[in-house]
Amino acid sequence: MFALYRCLIANRGEIAVRIIRACREMDIETVAIYALGDENSLHVSLADQAICIGEANPLDSYLNQARIISAAKITQANAIHPGYGFLSESASFAQKVEENGIHFIGPTYETMEMMGDKITARQTVDNANVPIIPGSTKAIESIEEVKTIAKEIEYPLVLKAASGGGGKGIRIVKSEDMLEKAYKEAKSEGKKYFDDDRIYVEAFIPVAKHVEVQVIGDGKDNYIHLGERDCSVQRKNQKLIEESPCAAISESMREQMCSDAVKVARASQYRSAGTIEYLVTDDAYYFIEMNARIQVEHTVTEMRANRDLLQAQLYLMQHGELPFSQKDIIFDGHVIEARINAENPEKQFQPSPGKVENLHLPQGFNIRVDSLLYSGYQVSPNYDSLVAKVIVKSSSRTLAIKKLKVALDEMVIDGFTTTADFLYAVLSYPEYANGDASNVDIKFLDRHQIIKEET
Amino acid sequence: MFALYRCLIANRGEIAVRIIRACREMDIETVAIYALGDENSLHVSLADQAICIGEANPLDSYLNQARIISAAKITQANAIHPGYGFLSESASFAQKVEENGIHFIGPTYETMEMMGDKITARQTVDNANVPIIPGSTKAIESIEEVKTIAKEIEYPLVLKAASGGGGKGIRIVKSEDMLEKAYKEAKSEGKKYFDDDRIYVEAFIPVAKHVEVQVIGDGKDNYIHLGERDCSVQRKNQKLIEESPCAAISESMREQMCSDAVKVARASQYRSAGTIEYLVTDDAYYFIEMNARIQVEHTVTEMRANRDLLQAQLYLMQHGELPFSQKDIIFDGHVIEARINAENPEKQFQPSPGKVENLHLPQGFNIRVDSLLYSGYQVSPNYDSLVAKVIVKSSSRTLAIKKLKVALDEMVIDGFTTTADFLYAVLSYPEYANGDASNVDIKFLDRHQIIKEET
Repeated sequence: MFALYRCLIANRGEIAVRIIRACREMDIETVAIYALGDENSLHVSLADQAICIGEANPLDSYLNQARIISAAKITQANAIHPGYGFLSESASFAQKVEENGIHFIGPTYETMEMMGDKITARQTVDNANVPIIPGSTKAIESIEEVKTIAKEIEYPLVLKAASGGGGKGIRIVKSEDMLEKAYKEAKSEGKKYFDDDRIYVEAFIPVAKHVEVQVIGDGKDNYIHLGERDCSVQRKNQKLIEESPCAAISESMREQMCSDAVKVARASQYRSAGTIEYLVTDDAYYFIEMNARIQVEHTVTEMRANRDLLQAQLYLMQHGELPFSQKDIIFDGHVIEARINAENPEKQFQPSPGKVENLHLPQGFNIRVDSLLYSGYQVSPNYDSLVAKVIVKSSSRTLAIKKLKVALDEMVIDGFTTTADFLYAVLSYPEYANGDASNVDIKFLDRHQIIKEET
Repeated sequence: MFALYRCLIANRGEIAVRIIRACREMDIETVAIYALGDENSLHVSLADQAICIGEANPLDSYLNQARIISAAKITQANAIHPGYGFLSESASFAQKVEENGIHFIGPTYETMEMMGDKITARQTVDNANVPIIPGSTKAIESIEEVKTIAKEIEYPLVLKAASGGGGKGIRIVKSEDMLEKAYKEAKSEGKKYFDDDRIYVEAFIPVAKHVEVQVIGDGKDNYIHLGERDCSVQRKNQKLIEESPCAAISESMREQMCSDAVKVARASQYRSAGTIEYLVTDDAYYFIEMNARIQVEHTVTEMRANRDLLQAQLYLMQHGELPFSQKDIIFDGHVIEARINAENPEKQFQPSPGKVENLHLPQGFNIRVDSLLYSGYQVSPNYDSLVAKVIVKSSSRTLAIKKLKVALDEMVIDGFTTTADFLYAVLSYPEYANGDASNVDIKFLDRHQIIKEET
């Protein structure tokens, strides 16, 4: 057994708090890092020790690999948990951590490289006989090659940079006469933003749900899934509400998606917790990407599968094996999570950080709140606007929606505007609340002006 | 189906909040009552409406039957939930509520009378072939009668007033020469405090655990149990820590105690949620009393059995049947609850009400907190000192103890002294924490000076 005696958390906010709690329950000491201005954050006060690593700008702190590794060495932490965001999917960071004799709690950097490169990820998934969006599985060498593929997948199609992210290096091509321009733009944007001009081509899928499967593997022989999450309620690709199970898919599709997710985990020799993301149309699903990290919405799965995923990651690191097997995973009830952001829905969701005045977080049976807030805390304008996750479980989707609405209604966060009222409205909206929500796809919020936005 | 459209909560504090949440999730409107000085309490702000019924003195408010019933009539509530304490076990209140055409959420007043009278309760339980503490099953008519019984159960024995409670009307008799004095005192105390001079005799059981079984019945045909709770960690008969399962009893004893509890519920035609309390010695258990109400520690059972007991009470009232059957009840993990009181353990646990300054309640996977606190709230000196319940679930007793300690350590309640640190010390104490806690009986805290009390 590996003596994981001290873990540095290379993150902040609610996920840092989440990781600290898991460590403490396992008698693992914790080291928080923080940027200047972040010294009053909850993760700083909950950790056994905290070390300031730089200025508020993430490049000088939460994204600064050298400083974080130095902090781990100074505090003699022998493991680093990256959380989500920041450096969590940086293969170079994971590699440097390991080269410094510190364990990285997550996949190997080789897996991260493989699944982080969109072309090799597509190849890996395709080779595992898991459906990918039709298109190329290697880098496109010429416009002619796109034209050949277009005969099969037809226009519109999408050109994407191999190292793309955040919407950069993506071009939708509606017809062949647009192709040359789009081809050059995608390549040059890839080069400019990611120093990688490789591109690939995919069919364009205009309407789809976003459904993902939680997996965990030991990186050797054992790979299991913990069910799916429907994360279709999104605004500009940001998830707002997540739930499990997905009501809109058949049992057979659910089983296939989950077993395919395990195939992908196995094919990538995936170690630790990760997520296989799919686009789901009426009758098909397609792998889009793997998130090689713990996700914001892992909490949904924890409540439905009654398993602590953070502790599972730590246990795996300590023991070299998973703490449970597929047959141990039993699902219960319907779980929904609302992400409460410090944003103003009436002003295009612009960040609205402020100082917490009155604060009352909901409580009760099968209600969980993970939050970085406390009364008097000044929410930082420098980072992610997520301030709380409210997760509820009930015996049916309808009852879970009701329970979440009651919880949101009970919640008081005074001092700044949050998305809570907006999410309450979404939960009440018939297309979301009624039936199986099969019409709630990732463009759902674009089609419906659920509350009036000021222009 | 009975349209339970508006429920008055004849209580305050965390249990009133708990009931309001259950009602809201079931679309039942809520009416809070409150005493003068209690207008800033959480239950007042969470209810759909609130009505002031009198002065702070409970006799003028939360114990005032006429005013509570008036409040229900004024607000057109068609049901009353009594919570625990106050009028929750008053058969006369339940009867008046029903006579006013309002539904009482709990057992019938006939059941309450039967199980509230200790002699008829003993008769009922004995007739159901459930073990009672050896002694008389009817009122003692003479000292000679006690002497006859003493030949069988031997000294020391206990004389108890039939309507006793709160330690009144109880005399331990060590030998026959003490009998006459004790006999007269018990009778006169019963007369004085309860206007009832009937007494009965029981064997004296010096050392025992307190283990209780949660039951729920429809008052007709269906009676089920939801497992036991070990509530042996007590101080002056006040429960401080409760857990489930009880680690110290055998599987066969557990099954017998639970099925016996169901027998008692059936024998008393018990409607709604209630508790059968037992004293448990090394090799036997004895019925001591039935609590004909929801209890503080119902939350322990909710987490272990994954059932909402408050909603079950409301469902039963609406539908006339239970929402689940015995086979639906599946237990999971080990659950422990710590009762956080506004009391000073260093000053003989005297109440220490004050104004909440900094407040941070623990959060996370399988952690539940039910509390009446919010930042800025002035805890009332007039009522129960319970301010929060922290309940955790984990896969083993050892892990649950650890998890609860981490949760208590995370909790911040500034502004007054609480029992949290004391409970942390109890959880850490080897006799509690190690093994099966079989030595933790109801006198455990008397034997061990876990923290130094100022004299």
